[in-house]
Amino acid sequence: MSVNDIARILGGEVAGDGNLTIRGINSLEEAGPGEISFLTNPRFRDRIVNTSASALIIREQTPLYNGPQVLVADPKIAYVKVAGLFAPDIPPFAEGNDRAFRYESCSIGKDVSIYPSVYIGEEAVIGDGSILFPGVFIGNRVRIGKRTVIYPNVSILEDCRVGNDVIIHGGTVIGSDGFGFVQDGIQSIKIPQLGIVQIDDRVEIGANNCIDRAAFGKTWIKSGVKTDNLVQIAHNVTIGENTIIVAQAGISGSVKVGRQVVIGGQVGVADHLEIGDRVMIASQSGIAKSVCPGEIVSGTPAMPHRRWLRVSNLLARLPEMIHTVRDLEKRLNILEMEQHKE
Amino acid sequence: MSVNDIARILGGEVAGDGNLTIRGINSLEEAGPGEISFLTNPRFRDRIVNTSASALIIREQTPLYNGPQVLVADPKIAYVKVAGLFAPDIPPFAEGNDRAFRYESCSIGKDVSIYPSVYIGEEAVIGDGSILFPGVFIGNRVRIGKRTVIYPNVSILEDCRVGNDVIIHGGTVIGSDGFGFVQDGIQSIKIPQLGIVQIDDRVEIGANNCIDRAAFGKTWIKSGVKTDNLVQIAHNVTIGENTIIVAQAGISGSVKVGRQVVIGGQVGVADHLEIGDRVMIASQSGIAKSVCPGEIVSGTPAMPHRRWLRVSNLLARLPEMIHTVRDLEKRLNILEMEQHKE
Amino acid sequence: MSVNDIARILGGEVAGDGNLTIRGINSLEEAGPGEISFLTNPRFRDRIVNTSASALIIREQTPLYNGPQVLVADPKIAYVKVAGLFAPDIPPFAEGNDRAFRYESCSIGKDVSIYPSVYIGEEAVIGDGSILFPGVFIGNRVRIGKRTVIYPNVSILEDCRVGNDVIIHGGTVIGSDGFGFVQDGIQSIKIPQLGIVQIDDRVEIGANNCIDRAAFGKTWIKSGVKTDNLVQIAHNVTIGENTIIVAQAGISGSVKVGRQVVIGGQVGVADHLEIGDRVMIASQSGIAKSVCPGEIVSGTPAMPHRRWLRVSNLLARLPEMIHTVRDLEKRLNILEMEQHKE
Repeated sequence: MSVNDIARILGGEVAGDGNLTIRGINSLEEAGPGEISFLTNPRFRDRIVNTSASALIIREQTPLYNGPQVLVADPKIAYVKVAGLFAPDIPPFAEGNDRAFRYESCSIGKDVSIYPSVYIGEEAVIGDGSILFPGVFIGNRVRIGKRTVIYPNVSILEDCRVGNDVIIHGGTVIGSDGFGFVQDGIQSIKIPQLGIVQIDDRVEIGANNCIDRAAFGKTWIKSGVKTDNLVQIAHNVTIGENTIIVAQAGISGSVKVGRQVVIGGQVGVADHLEIGDRVMIASQSGIAKSVCPGEIVSGTPAMPHRRWLRVSNLLARLPEMIHTVRDLEKRLNILEMEQHKE
Repeated sequence: MSVNDIARILGGEVAGDGNLTIRGINSLEEAGPGEISFLTNPRFRDRIVNTSASALIIREQTPLYNGPQVLVADPKIAYVKVAGLFAPDIPPFAEGNDRAFRYESCSIGKDVSIYPSVYIGEEAVIGDGSILFPGVFIGNRVRIGKRTVIYPNVSILEDCRVGNDVIIHGGTVIGSDGFGFVQDGIQSIKIPQLGIVQIDDRVEIGANNCIDRAAFGKTWIKSGVKTDNLVQIAHNVTIGENTIIVAQAGISGSVKVGRQVVIGGQVGVADHLEIGDRVMIASQSGIAKSVCPGEIVSGTPAMPHRRWLRVSNLLARLPEMIHTVRDLEKRLNILEMEQHKE
Repeated sequence: MSVNDIARILGGEVAGDGNLTIRGINSLEEAGPGEISFLTNPRFRDRIVNTSASALIIREQTPLYNGPQVLVADPKIAYVKVAGLFAPDIPPFAEGNDRAFRYESCSIGKDVSIYPSVYIGEEAVIGDGSILFPGVFIGNRVRIGKRTVIYPNVSILEDCRVGNDVIIHGGTVIGSDGFGFVQDGIQSIKIPQLGIVQIDDRVEIGANNCIDRAAFGKTWIKSGVKTDNLVQIAHNVTIGENTIIVAQAGISGSVKVGRQVVIGGQVGVADHLEIGDRVMIASQSGIAKSVCPGEIVSGTPAMPHRRWLRVSNLLARLPEMIHTVRDLEKRLNILEMEQHKE
């Protein structure tokens, strides 16, 4: 692939020798001969001087670099597109599937890859072009859409539904029982969890996530949601379109999260709350009250982010503050004594 | 199943047409024709008016609802019982088990379901009626009791013991090595973990939990304990009867947790502590000292819950407090100067 | 094995009957006849009196114990050595590997154990003496070193590299995609993750960890690192030699952690930071700024540990502090009024 080819795909212009062959993409620091690199943040402009990349994707032509430059309006989007060109395909499993187990009653689409040690339950449906890696468990009546990739050792339990173009990373469990018990004096009596998990199109779920099935109805991950690793989503939660949840966050039961929300790493959200659209929650925050749309919150208990920044600064200075208060107290005692003497 | 049948099972009375056929149970909002619903919390009384449920489980007859009502002393317990009637059975695996691997020396009880890709080690024992889903690993000499359900891709390592009527959700690892090292100047030398994990009867372990084997003796999860997803239980921990541990909590090594304790989500408990019976720990708390029986604690560092509520309220007001202190300081400076002038 | 044998291996001296046969090692409380025990911490000296151990490893001979004593310079190191003598070997899988799947193009060393339901991808390399437990997934072109143990249901995705003498506990996912997206107004566009994970020699990774592949280059876990369970390591992170990461900690993208660092349980480290060599981070801390070598930090936001101890003590006393400030305010009001009257 030539620099010209890349420019054409990106709809960009070439400054310099467009005939150069490019066989990969890499960061400015790590790129070598034959690789194209990119500048997405002007802050890293000085890295251009030392890069060994053979070509550069950039917004405006720079005199800092001698090789061919591909000029594009949005270098970040351009980088993602070019990375996509060089990303290896997820390998299909071409061999026969006699090493996987599936019931006669399941329905498998066209061009589906079923790796060894996959289990597909009764009446399950797998859409065209989907890939099930080794150790994937598909429960009875589960429905998987088209072009969905399910990485090794993922479990999707009975009756759950997964949309099209979904990616589920390794070890994730979808459709385990919600954590619901009735207290009978001493013992906890299990509340049967009769609902399902529904995951809509273009969702990406990280590794070792847990998404519990609903007590009734569904736990619902709407289209375009992305979760990082080790995320916990409890029963009856709804996550709105295109929301992002960073690693190790936990969303308690029946929470409704809006669309385009960003939930930071290790955040905890208490049960039955509403998190409005486009809310941003800083990492490690503890959310004990609902959050209105568009708010940016931090801390435990959560507060407006700007306030948290001030509070967290003051926290470290509590010892001095206490010292000041005690000093004031002493001085006031003296003043009062003097006043009384008069 | 008729409304009369359900009332009989619950030991309740019917107000209205008891002959109506019921084919499921659902929440007030989601119930449709043919489904029974329930009111467990008077707070949601107004939802009765709009429900499409065909029958209602309730404490006392209500004029807000026209259909048949099943009157019971405890609607929550009643709901759980009825949900159990309609919950699908966990499907046994009826096919031959030539797709699972097991040693001749293992002992399999009656009516055991062994799904494909299960591995059962030497001298392992599986009790009557237990179900091992695909990808379950049972190490050498592991003992599993009766009617225990082990969901997909769970690993139970050598010598561990699991009781009767236990449920272990997908991806959980039981019996991994405790995290114990001796520092030899620079490197960490692994301390062999020679103990086991023992899980008693009627325990339910969530998905993707980690319960480490003891250095010596056992890590012990006593009967009736329930853990949510992504819980970490370190080596030599004891969890007392009927204790509940919510998602993403972590219990450090050698901690002794009493019975009927509730440990909230994302709580951390430092090593070698004792958590007394019936303690409640609010979510995200950091427990650095032992907690006496019956205490309710919150926060980091943990304190009595009521105090934490006040402290956490004050936290957000630290900036104003600092402001007040500085103001006092200025006014005091002026007063002192005036005093000196005199 | 006799007490004399053990003393010889440890390079220690025997006080008492060295001919006694020892068949195991246990803690002072749990040891029984035939077992040797040890005192590593003088604090537990009184436990010696009640132990039923048949022999004792100790620094200096004690009159509190009647049985044979093995005197060594460092009882902790000695205990680890003796525990190693009695630790069961990790069982190799001697049976044929027709129940595992592997491509012709992979390369398997000598004395490798491949359990059933293992998957080994194209051109993968497994070094001599390594053990792959059931459900292990080895992606295409993955390289595993010698004497490495990979426990059940671990996934190691394409192109990742694992060194010699590594232990990876159950359910861990290595090489899942880094969590990288470009925002296109509303949707998140996936950034292809073209790098790998490299794990060097003598690393031990806990159960249900997630270690993401780099966007470019590698996520790098250097030799001797030990991670506990449920740890998250994001893309492009480097963890320096012999660093320890306790359970449920999360390290965000592109963080550089030095060598011999100790990161406590449930710690979160924000992206792109540098954590210097030998830093210690207390559990549950939130690290938002880089930390200089040798520092000991705690809290959220992180501060020097000693300061955090004072701050966290003061936190619980905030209500009294507020009370004092209000009291000062009132008294000052009175003083000012009196002053004005004059």
